[in-house]
Amino acid sequence: MKVAKFGGTSLANAEQIKKVCGIIQADRSRRLIVVSAPGKRYKDDTKVTDLLIAYAERFLEAGEAEAEKQAIYERYQEIVEELGLSEEVWKQVQSELEGVLVNKQGLSTERFIDAVKAAGEDTCAKVVAHYLSSLGEEAAYIQPKEAGMLVTDEASNAHVLPVAYEKLAALRERKGISVFPGFFGYSTAGDLVTFSRGGSDITGSILAAAVKADVYENFTDVDSVYVVNPNLIPEPKEVKEITYREMRELSYSGFGVFHEEALIPAYQADIPVCIKNTNNPSAPGTLIMAERPYATNRVSGIASDSGFCSIYVSKYLMNKEIGFGRKLLQILEEEGLSYEHTPSGIDNISVILRERDMTAEMEQRIVARIQTELEAEDIAIQHGLALVMIVGEGMRRSVGTTARATTALAVAKINLEMINQGSSEVSMMFGVKAEEADRAVIALYHEFFGEEESETQAIQAGSSMMA
Amino acid sequence: MKVAKFGGTSLANAEQIKKVCGIIQADRSRRLIVVSAPGKRYKDDTKVTDLLIAYAERFLEAGEAEAEKQAIYERYQEIVEELGLSEEVWKQVQSELEGVLVNKQGLSTERFIDAVKAAGEDTCAKVVAHYLSSLGEEAAYIQPKEAGMLVTDEASNAHVLPVAYEKLAALRERKGISVFPGFFGYSTAGDLVTFSRGGSDITGSILAAAVKADVYENFTDVDSVYVVNPNLIPEPKEVKEITYREMRELSYSGFGVFHEEALIPAYQADIPVCIKNTNNPSAPGTLIMAERPYATNRVSGIASDSGFCSIYVSKYLMNKEIGFGRKLLQILEEEGLSYEHTPSGIDNISVILRERDMTAEMEQRIVARIQTELEAEDIAIQHGLALVMIVGEGMRRSVGTTARATTALAVAKINLEMINQGSSEVSMMFGVKAEEADRAVIALYHEFFGEEESETQAIQAGSSMMA
Repeated sequence: MKVAKFGGTSLANAEQIKKVCGIIQADRSRRLIVVSAPGKRYKDDTKVTDLLIAYAERFLEAGEAEAEKQAIYERYQEIVEELGLSEEVWKQVQSELEGVLVNKQGLSTERFIDAVKAAGEDTCAKVVAHYLSSLGEEAAYIQPKEAGMLVTDEASNAHVLPVAYEKLAALRERKGISVFPGFFGYSTAGDLVTFSRGGSDITGSILAAAVKADVYENFTDVDSVYVVNPNLIPEPKEVKEITYREMRELSYSGFGVFHEEALIPAYQADIPVCIKNTNNPSAPGTLIMAERPYATNRVSGIASDSGFCSIYVSKYLMNKEIGFGRKLLQILEEEGLSYEHTPSGIDNISVILRERDMTAEMEQRIVARIQTELEAEDIAIQHGLALVMIVGEGMRRSVGTTARATTALAVAKINLEMINQGSSEVSMMFGVKAEEADRAVIALYHEFFGEEESETQAIQAGSSMMA
Repeated sequence: MKVAKFGGTSLANAEQIKKVCGIIQADRSRRLIVVSAPGKRYKDDTKVTDLLIAYAERFLEAGEAEAEKQAIYERYQEIVEELGLSEEVWKQVQSELEGVLVNKQGLSTERFIDAVKAAGEDTCAKVVAHYLSSLGEEAAYIQPKEAGMLVTDEASNAHVLPVAYEKLAALRERKGISVFPGFFGYSTAGDLVTFSRGGSDITGSILAAAVKADVYENFTDVDSVYVVNPNLIPEPKEVKEITYREMRELSYSGFGVFHEEALIPAYQADIPVCIKNTNNPSAPGTLIMAERPYATNRVSGIASDSGFCSIYVSKYLMNKEIGFGRKLLQILEEEGLSYEHTPSGIDNISVILRERDMTAEMEQRIVARIQTELEAEDIAIQHGLALVMIVGEGMRRSVGTTARATTALAVAKINLEMINQGSSEVSMMFGVKAEEADRAVIALYHEFFGEEESETQAIQAGSSMMA
């Protein structure tokens, strides 16, 4: 059994929905389908979810939002008509949608917004179920409340409750095709609550775990994940197979295929995730799994992100002082800051964190506390850093990856502000000046993906490493 | 004004003491002299300090230790005679020494041991002062109690009290040559207390800071500090100038010139330290200072040490968990463990620590706590690691040091378990398997000190980097 989730662009109009249903019909094991709300049909189009948010805001402000409501109806009506569904289907769908949109009574503002937003996915699931039925399939819309999608009561930020998995497991036994709306669940008190953005991915991941799917297929609009951000390298190589750990290490920008928290349920249940393209379903896509077979090219991808800063602290004989590092991290924790890495020397330590998290006042307070509480000798804050990650499970099996990477960066005249490679060897992190990050990524891409030669050849040849 | 400290081998016999006094006379600014106790005259000889310890132990056990006492007297008597000093000098010196050795009354065991140990340096200082006087110099033995060497009351582990610096500053105004015994001071209650091992270096460093010396000369039996452990590379290059920070980063084995805590007073007072050879005083030695001029060869030294282990911890979405790293370090702190480095990936962190600090029971407790308190997914302990450090202040000014280092290691087929380079860029740390550490150091030595070529040439030439 496969769980297949389709994103907004895969459901943007009737033509796309026909593709989706063709994909469902092409593989009888695709029995549990999760849908997003219809997305953009063209570049400047508006997603249905954004139409719904605009509606809710206007309705809360003005007590009515007729124009906004009509824009939503038009999107769905066009889809229903072009799918060749009957006027009755449209009336039924519209009536249920209307029931949500104008029914503010008894709902707090937060609950009303969550209910309106969720109507995008919910309506879409009904339309898809109707269309599949019209094609002669045994297909049914599944109501998340009835199915047991139980979540915490945090508006727009729900988290699944463990009990939900037990209830949702029953979906495995359902006959035919089940169409499940993504993005929301119900609190134990029975109120509708949505997940955070990207919530349909979460729904799919939860269902895949609950029914113990063979694979969780995530259909989007790209053929695969690429080894590097396509904005930097035109037509980069595709990632065929990648592990969860690699995917996480690559979570810096350029790898935003879907929200990483969405992966957790599938990860924990050890369900492989396959990223596929609705517009090119025969492409193999990218498979995310727990372990991947040893590949000749042991680097899986290169990612980078800017907007980091470092706090450098030094003190003579620091490393003989038990608790120094812990106290430093505690100061950051008390400011509510998380950090990325802490490269260190004997008597110095640098903490790398996101610049956006640290205000100027926090920075002042932190420096003052490090000075007075830790009696540090030198404290220096460096802004404008980027982190460049090379990721690959296979790196641990071979000598010389670091040499190839650092030589490629040296030839590109990029100075390394920091290097960090833990004993997992899934990744290697280089800190560079933000303005040099793109050049660094391009240099590394050419080193590891530019030519088809083995590392041993490269090292033995010597000069070829300089390419 | 210079403070010159002479180590045990520089004072092992009359011949060596003559060299020492020649060195003192050769530079009139060497006005404050610190002496150790006489050291080994040949490989299997016993240091006077060890004779004194043997004496004290036997005396405490048996109530007398005549043979051990005679061994001590013989060493000093031979020195006094061979220096051509009079019988009266010997009688006086012996009588004062005897006063310490047999005077246990009213002293605790700890105090007695400290007093006996200190007699080695104290007697030596008197002999040197007598000999300098016999040469016509205005020279005097300085009693540390009278001079104000005030320390904390921790037997065998005294620390200087801040007030001592004010009192000892008066030594700057003394005429002639002052000979000060190293290794001990007095508590404010007036009791003799010794420093930890290497304590004469501490005495010299304190005096240099107190009198604001132009330089603190530390005479030993090597021409200089070497860029690498001479046991690994025969006749390695000498270090001419090195900064305190570099010296500290190199404090792993192979750079044990003197105890690093001994440097603190000089470091804090910004007094340059010069390591010189009593047996070759015209050699320039190694100068340790706050800043060093930019040198063409920006790597100052290569050190390594084994006996490390790593605790690898991974958990999906770890880096979104504020406080994870801090809690991990807190567990180690609660076990009384200090750590060396914490290289990390997105969802994993490794803590590098000394194996000797962690017992098997501690290891079990720590793993259990990480599992239950941090809910980590994977915990792996790797034993038998070595850390290899490349150190050099100049590294930050140039591109490509890392590339040269990692390429040299890759060519030597050494796998890198870890890499760590903080934003100070004074050092670069590589974790390797212990059995590969020596080969790693040798490969790095040949890369950075083997041939006289600039880094730019090396990178441009390409193949030459592989040498």
